[in-house]
Amino acid sequence: MRLQIIHMSLLTIGTVAFDTIETPYGKVERVIGGACTYISWSASYFTNKIHLVSVVGDDFPEEELKAMENRGVDLAGLEIKKGEKSFFWSGRYHNNMNSRDTLVTDLNVLADFHPVVPEKARSAKYIMLGNLTPAIQGMVLDQLDGTQKLIVLDTMNFWMDVALEELKKVISRVHVLTINDEEARQLSGEHSLVKAARVILEMGPKILIVKKGEHGALLFQGEEIFYAPALPLAEVFDPTGAGDTFAGGFIGYLASTDDLSAQNIKKAIVVGSAMASFCVEDFSLNRLKTLSPAEINERIQKFKDLVHFEM
Amino acid sequence: MRLQIIHMSLLTIGTVAFDTIETPYGKVERVIGGACTYISWSASYFTNKIHLVSVVGDDFPEEELKAMENRGVDLAGLEIKKGEKSFFWSGRYHNNMNSRDTLVTDLNVLADFHPVVPEKARSAKYIMLGNLTPAIQGMVLDQLDGTQKLIVLDTMNFWMDVALEELKKVISRVHVLTINDEEARQLSGEHSLVKAARVILEMGPKILIVKKGEHGALLFQGEEIFYAPALPLAEVFDPTGAGDTFAGGFIGYLASTDDLSAQNIKKAIVVGSAMASFCVEDFSLNRLKTLSPAEINERIQKFKDLVHFEM
Repeated sequence: MRLQIIHMSLLTIGTVAFDTIETPYGKVERVIGGACTYISWSASYFTNKIHLVSVVGDDFPEEELKAMENRGVDLAGLEIKKGEKSFFWSGRYHNNMNSRDTLVTDLNVLADFHPVVPEKARSAKYIMLGNLTPAIQGMVLDQLDGTQKLIVLDTMNFWMDVALEELKKVISRVHVLTINDEEARQLSGEHSLVKAARVILEMGPKILIVKKGEHGALLFQGEEIFYAPALPLAEVFDPTGAGDTFAGGFIGYLASTDDLSAQNIKKAIVVGSAMASFCVEDFSLNRLKTLSPAEINERIQKFKDLVHFEM
Repeated sequence: MRLQIIHMSLLTIGTVAFDTIETPYGKVERVIGGACTYISWSASYFTNKIHLVSVVGDDFPEEELKAMENRGVDLAGLEIKKGEKSFFWSGRYHNNMNSRDTLVTDLNVLADFHPVVPEKARSAKYIMLGNLTPAIQGMVLDQLDGTQKLIVLDTMNFWMDVALEELKKVISRVHVLTINDEEARQLSGEHSLVKAARVILEMGPKILIVKKGEHGALLFQGEEIFYAPALPLAEVFDPTGAGDTFAGGFIGYLASTDDLSAQNIKKAIVVGSAMASFCVEDFSLNRLKTLSPAEINERIQKFKDLVHFEM
């Protein structure tokens, strides 16, 4: 008999897509993108037991799927629709990189997506629901076996505008909600993030993570607040996927440690922030595909140094 | 012979004024304000050897001056102009508290202010130049004896618009510059704060502090970056004076410890942030007048807890 480290299995859902992106640093056309892609790549540095549930057309490159499989991502839940096209998004970032215009959103295969969670993934203990129609996120929850340890939901202002009641329903079923500061204000009707968190934690989740981009992230769990800074960077090349990469690092680290203490949740936020800081250094998943564990540890240490003082 | 803790003396210059302020929480008329007032009150919790240089009219309440003297503020450098009025500012904050409209600026005594640093204050080792016309800040530096250990300058975008060359001249003569993020971008022409800091540190200062309001403060010294968060607050009652209170706590703590190591500079930033977090809890100097050392230490501990994690 041998001792084995058992990583808890992780289920990720969200888009797997093509992006055309323009930033002040350049333009890339039809590169690999999608929330679930970023989440899975980021999480793959912490666990190799990942089940992905998503949909693509037959235009999606096979070598990209192979590369994910090589990272431990099980694609049994990825539907490949023959003769159809993958989801496509195109956007242009403003000079400050904090805002962007969406130029094109072609739903394609996503227009009629009915996620099917493979039998073996229904008992996954950690669930990352990437940004998608709240009703689809709910459909995934309906298929789980009820033994989950942590369900994390990411969403955005668009769903607050067009599907608020559906969104509130699915929010009430998860443990952790991740949104940005403006979304926290919109969802709660409170400007102060402290008050916003109180309102949102009444909706069901035990934990709220407020992503503030270059200003870091705030974690609210019960009455406790934790502040993870963002690393000040000389260049933010392309912010696309940073939030998803954060989420992937966060839940990947938790799945690999299987420790949901308040202390470990804080560490997971820092891990997620560190992963996001890599993501923005290059277009698409370029930087996320070339990381080493040593680089990740070094980056996490930088986050520690950044806020460390003796009193 | 007895051992004595010798606090280094601190010289503060800036406005001593009346403010009329409107925030979503209410309106106060002709309350005590001014950069130098906030700086001095805040610093007085750390040192009682403060020399203030400023100007008021004979409308300024004597009991307010007495209250400052009781805190160890030497007012020999405060000119009281008979028959004239004190500087007056009126502003209204927007709902988000991050922006405000200036409604009235009556320079009054400030229109013709020629600061005279009293003989005994010319050898002060710590100098806090509050926001004022750069030429006036320069006049104060001209009167010092050259034995200073730390000179800190605060300024604002207005002077970058109307007196950039004067401003650059005085910036080249100080050790520490404190400005907000938009001002750092304007002064440097760089959007990235990391790049902005490089440009600004070439202008003369050894240290740049970028104040980001509810997002905390960034400290750049050499190649090192330190991030002090702001305490997330349920209510920001009135942000007026928060930056000056930060500066007062920062330099007051340094003058009292007389330790300019990189580590102690970081502590000073946290002390300043803690003081600023009290300032915004009430209008005018109300909160700053009623603090206890125990409350301050407790608040500093909160800042430590806010960012603490084990890796």
